[in-house]
Amino acid sequence: MAEAGIVYIGKKPTMNYVLAVVTHFNGGSRDVIVKARGRSISRAVDVAEIVRGRFVPEARVRDVRIATEKVTSEEGRATSVSSIEIVLSR
Amino acid sequence: MAEAGIVYIGKKPTMNYVLAVVTHFNGGSRDVIVKARGRSISRAVDVAEIVRGRFVPEARVRDVRIATEKVTSEEGRATSVSSIEIVLSR
Repeated sequence: MAEAGIVYIGKKPTMNYVLAVVTHFNGGSRDVIVKARGRSISRAVDVAEIVRGRFVPEARVRDVRIATEKVTSEEGRATSVSSIEIVLSR
Repeated sequence: MAEAGIVYIGKKPTMNYVLAVVTHFNGGSRDVIVKARGRSISRAVDVAEIVRGRFVPEARVRDVRIATEKVTSEEGRATSVSSIEIVLSR
């Protein structure tokens, strides 16, 4: 049984990440977890919805988790950033 | 029993929406639904996390739903936009 794929969403074009998720599914993953922080959260939702709507119609959103992560900058300053994990399953 | 509050997230400062959610809870709502589309989705997650972490610690994320909405522009062009609904319950 293939392990869950994980795709971290950054600032590249949305379709790059869509392709990464589809590749995980085509490689045999039953679950792919789309993760993002901060401003990339909107893009993570776009990625999940495009995968479901256009490329892997049998995939469904099994869980969506939101949280706050503590990040310490290079200067040692601690800030909080929101995060999301979208679990897609086929 | 008070009805669920609904807060639509737009482009105003995050704390405006945090205040709106807290006001619903203080007015007796057991559930407050935070809704956003497109680029505002990241802000919706920030709002939910700030409410939980700083203002209403007993609130928990009961559900997170993501979807795609069809939007028709003034020129009649149809596009899709991702949306999120975060259900906070105390």
